[in-house]
Amino acid sequence: MIKLEPGSVIGILGGGQLGRMLAMAAAQLGYHTHIYCPDEKNPAEQVTNRLSRSSYTDEVALIRFAKVVDVVTYEFENIPVETVELLNQHVPTFPSAQVLQVSQDRLHEKNFLNKIGVETAPYAAVMTEGEAVEALKIITYPAVLKTRRFGYDGKGQAIVKSPEELSAAWAMLNSSDIIIEGFIPFDMEISVLAARGQDGEIKCFDPAENIHKNHILDLSIAPARIAPHLRAQAVGIACHIVAELEYVGVLAVEFFVSSSDPVFRVNEIAPRVHNSGHWSIEACPTSQFEQHIRAICGLPLGDTSLYGRAEMKNLIGDDILDVALYLKDPDANFHHYGKTHARPGRKMGHVTRILPTVGTNKKSI
Amino acid sequence: MIKLEPGSVIGILGGGQLGRMLAMAAAQLGYHTHIYCPDEKNPAEQVTNRLSRSSYTDEVALIRFAKVVDVVTYEFENIPVETVELLNQHVPTFPSAQVLQVSQDRLHEKNFLNKIGVETAPYAAVMTEGEAVEALKIITYPAVLKTRRFGYDGKGQAIVKSPEELSAAWAMLNSSDIIIEGFIPFDMEISVLAARGQDGEIKCFDPAENIHKNHILDLSIAPARIAPHLRAQAVGIACHIVAELEYVGVLAVEFFVSSSDPVFRVNEIAPRVHNSGHWSIEACPTSQFEQHIRAICGLPLGDTSLYGRAEMKNLIGDDILDVALYLKDPDANFHHYGKTHARPGRKMGHVTRILPTVGTNKKSI
Repeated sequence: MIKLEPGSVIGILGGGQLGRMLAMAAAQLGYHTHIYCPDEKNPAEQVTNRLSRSSYTDEVALIRFAKVVDVVTYEFENIPVETVELLNQHVPTFPSAQVLQVSQDRLHEKNFLNKIGVETAPYAAVMTEGEAVEALKIITYPAVLKTRRFGYDGKGQAIVKSPEELSAAWAMLNSSDIIIEGFIPFDMEISVLAARGQDGEIKCFDPAENIHKNHILDLSIAPARIAPHLRAQAVGIACHIVAELEYVGVLAVEFFVSSSDPVFRVNEIAPRVHNSGHWSIEACPTSQFEQHIRAICGLPLGDTSLYGRAEMKNLIGDDILDVALYLKDPDANFHHYGKTHARPGRKMGHVTRILPTVGTNKKSI
Repeated sequence: MIKLEPGSVIGILGGGQLGRMLAMAAAQLGYHTHIYCPDEKNPAEQVTNRLSRSSYTDEVALIRFAKVVDVVTYEFENIPVETVELLNQHVPTFPSAQVLQVSQDRLHEKNFLNKIGVETAPYAAVMTEGEAVEALKIITYPAVLKTRRFGYDGKGQAIVKSPEELSAAWAMLNSSDIIIEGFIPFDMEISVLAARGQDGEIKCFDPAENIHKNHILDLSIAPARIAPHLRAQAVGIACHIVAELEYVGVLAVEFFVSSSDPVFRVNEIAPRVHNSGHWSIEACPTSQFEQHIRAICGLPLGDTSLYGRAEMKNLIGDDILDVALYLKDPDANFHHYGKTHARPGRKMGHVTRILPTVGTNKKSI
């Protein structure tokens, strides 16, 4: 176990808003951060004075980076496993390359989850349209075709409702690494942010209820509006997953919740801090970002209890132009990610509100 | 009035923990920051990718700095007035040079306060020991001798209890710019953080009660444990001061409170965010740092209501070594300023706790 003192340098692969908020949480605890990101003018580099602007496959730059940081983490899962493996030869890197390998490929991920007894949608890996036809005889329609790797925010996905739609979907995805998933009817999507320390300590945040618009997260509400015993069940599964992965850091688990299905099915996991946990910045003593930093630095995990009911709204594209509105709202905690161009579908910021709720809490006043 | 959009660059003179926390608040709102500080390895430069390491009297560097930022502010009052005047010729600079001139000199400050009807200790400016002897006949013993400029944390001050102590005190201060202040017996020191926007909007934080150890702030408790009508009186005086100064930004007002004296006397004002307001980061929807950024950027001021009773403890020198203790305490919000050497008397970090309190608040749960 490594235990990093304040003043140590945390290397972060990726320069998006997650890296940015990780860097700010690290700074509060007295750590320096070093952003490694190939992109010009990325949001994270604005909040640190250490930057490597290099490709994730540039071995020379990676080793140079590894030599000037004390630990490495990453803010997104689509970096090459080889990158994390290389870095880990020189400096402790969390989460591990093995975890990345599992979560980067929808087939590996589902195989792992089912192996440890966590339910998912029925699925099959296929490489040709012919294999897809065969697989769909068992999975049945409707189903979802997904590329096994590099999908996000609904990209690399196609719903097929009948055999007639298969050819078009297959052509659209244009890949020979496809997973077919049975369509799970659900009433709600929830997520649990689970953290595990290097010493095996596990703490989860309350499950959040997630509402999407155009396949992009629009709203997260914590706690999710489901019965307490169901919330406990989701938290239990998330704990089980991080324990089995021997995970270090914060991991997100997305679930489908259906009133007609007594089984909790995991949609996907993400080996990183997650958009559906941004409310934790204001709503909890320890945010998901601080928790991740604590975990990778060998610090004890922090308290994750909720001060109140929290609602996080994403500001997508032009939503960010309403900044004046949010700044005038006394209940709105406004976050701007420092991105210049408000392209459609781009996550530009978010707003969190803490709302009164029934019940009591030790922090209530 | 200037109104700065996210993406604009805020120049900050000074690289200490106040500049650091200002930069982090600015980042949350989507602003870039540029730290101007002569010191190597300053705490603020760790949280921004724009830095000028130059002297406050280097006109070429100051003008270069002014040209790449959209507004300038400062984190401490001991920068030359000429520096702020020069910058303001090139870029809007808040608070103004006039405000700095008033607050940089204890004599100007007291003259100003008394002129606008705000009570202080009785005082007299003296240049020689002979003048001091004469002045003390009116002010009477005990009294406090202070250098008019550049004092902080009890430095540049000496208490004289009797005429016999005067010569030693005079020699110790070794200055011909001395102000003698009558000693004010007080039960409590409180402070109010007041903010004023460019449009004249004023909002104050609840008064905090301040407890010192070795002349350095040890503990701030908000709200101050005095009657509500006294808190309102202090807030009223702070509002009056920022209005009369036509101030832009956050200003701290320190008061002596005495049960034997019906008059609120101002000890001093500081034209900046202040150590006694750090609890606002967790205890209020808008922190003093965000409020200052809002004011200088022409944004509406934010909500300053308290979520709960707040207690902020400074971590001075070796106190910072107890970090493990604070990280394990679920109620402690730990802040480390990223300083390397824990010299005695050096402010290394702080810890804020939000505690249950009686009464209700719209944010309570």
